[in-house]
Amino acid sequence: MEKTQLAKLAIEKMLSGDKASAALGMELQNVGAGTATLSMLVRRDMVNGHNIAHGGMVFSLADTAFACACNSHNVVNVAQSCHINFTRPALLGDVLTAKAVEVTRGRRSGVYDVRVENQDGKLVALFRGQCANLNENIVET
Amino acid sequence: MEKTQLAKLAIEKMLSGDKASAALGMELQNVGAGTATLSMLVRRDMVNGHNIAHGGMVFSLADTAFACACNSHNVVNVAQSCHINFTRPALLGDVLTAKAVEVTRGRRSGVYDVRVENQDGKLVALFRGQCANLNENIVET
Amino acid sequence: MEKTQLAKLAIEKMLSGDKASAALGMELQNVGAGTATLSMLVRRDMVNGHNIAHGGMVFSLADTAFACACNSHNVVNVAQSCHINFTRPALLGDVLTAKAVEVTRGRRSGVYDVRVENQDGKLVALFRGQCANLNENIVET
Amino acid sequence: MEKTQLAKLAIEKMLSGDKASAALGMELQNVGAGTATLSMLVRRDMVNGHNIAHGGMVFSLADTAFACACNSHNVVNVAQSCHINFTRPALLGDVLTAKAVEVTRGRRSGVYDVRVENQDGKLVALFRGQCANLNENIVET
Repeated sequence: MEKTQLAKLAIEKMLSGDKASAALGMELQNVGAGTATLSMLVRRDMVNGHNIAHGGMVFSLADTAFACACNSHNVVNVAQSCHINFTRPALLGDVLTAKAVEVTRGRRSGVYDVRVENQDGKLVALFRGQCANLNENIVET
Repeated sequence: MEKTQLAKLAIEKMLSGDKASAALGMELQNVGAGTATLSMLVRRDMVNGHNIAHGGMVFSLADTAFACACNSHNVVNVAQSCHINFTRPALLGDVLTAKAVEVTRGRRSGVYDVRVENQDGKLVALFRGQCANLNENIVET
Repeated sequence: MEKTQLAKLAIEKMLSGDKASAALGMELQNVGAGTATLSMLVRRDMVNGHNIAHGGMVFSLADTAFACACNSHNVVNVAQSCHINFTRPALLGDVLTAKAVEVTRGRRSGVYDVRVENQDGKLVALFRGQCANLNENIVET
Repeated sequence: MEKTQLAKLAIEKMLSGDKASAALGMELQNVGAGTATLSMLVRRDMVNGHNIAHGGMVFSLADTAFACACNSHNVVNVAQSCHINFTRPALLGDVLTAKAVEVTRGRRSGVYDVRVENQDGKLVALFRGQCANLNENIVET
């Protein structure tokens, strides 16, 4: 099967069971071999008293994009550690987009970078995740 | 005012506006000068298809404990960067507890460590956050 | 003065006092506004018993590239926190190149990414650094 | 063999080949199962023009303490990723001590925390390292 098609099948299966991402209204925009883009509206139940998005909500979006990218080769990978820099507040009503790209992938682990931007293309957060390869397939091929 | 009492006033005010933490069912167990403990039940809308908590939900709990601890001196501090290691899956129905402690606090920034444990005291995640001091008070004193 | 020229002046002054970078044989290849490239030979006094470079030597090169890039606007910036992923061993005799780029720069802090590659262009380490702006000039303008 | 004795044998063997740590004058103060303490004098060839230690020198000390601690079970472990916060400058002539402790250790990876302090017990840097288990022994038992 072609790589992009396999990525789509694997990630659609993975996301279909992910109640957390669904509850936060995340939408998969795109997925390929080693890449994924998701978007999320900053809702009223995601902000603090100053109408600024909780860091955990921004992290959740980035982490899901990371998970989609690092599982896109149809091999189960789990997050080991993640690092995030918050560079600009995300506000109530903003539509955030997280774009994950593969930086390196070895036999046992990989590193992925995610940029989270708002609807004006302004950088909201930078995320770097390291995953561990569990050597299991997601969908049968 | 006594430090612990001031911490309680400041953090109660901060959390009262935090719709995200409330929506995730987080409960403040304890707060003092430079420390905070929060708990959260892993609900059905926080897990994936294997009934494992989304990393973003675990991060959100740790990040809120961090925010409570670094704002507990009644001075507004915002998260600049955070690092998290996921050491054990959190499962549906688990009650997680995040305990934040102040490692160091300077004039402009501080570092806080958070341990997230499950109801059996097993380590689920290690979190380290760095904040920037905005030099504004939360409650008037 | 033109930005690239100012960067060169500031960084040459900064490096002229840096005995540590000199002792490790680092060479500045290039510097511009927000970017810097340095190279370093992995010497016999930088490796372990398996002729693999000490992680601290790889970090030192990346950290110096970061310092050059974040001071290139002729404003003193100091490292607050750094994150490094080691992706491939650097070996005795390798010539490493660290290339730093500015990801974001605000009034008080900035984030810089550094890639360390060997002479074959293979990724050895990924580095992300956050700096704090001290609001002092390096050279008079 | 008793765990502390095995740790000493393994780490002495590991350090005996480590030319980088020797070149920087690091001294092993103590090692046990999952812990290690090393010290280092900040020499003239480790500082910048303001007589402040290069961040890479501080990192190198912390990273070596991490390596000693995570190899102390006589199983080869390599650093995957490290995070460091610089909290206070280390100065020419300071004697730094890095103390590494094991936070968690699984079948495939572990997390270790290192505090670097100066001779007055002041915190200079906080380091967190994640290692991967290569499942080989260092010394025969």
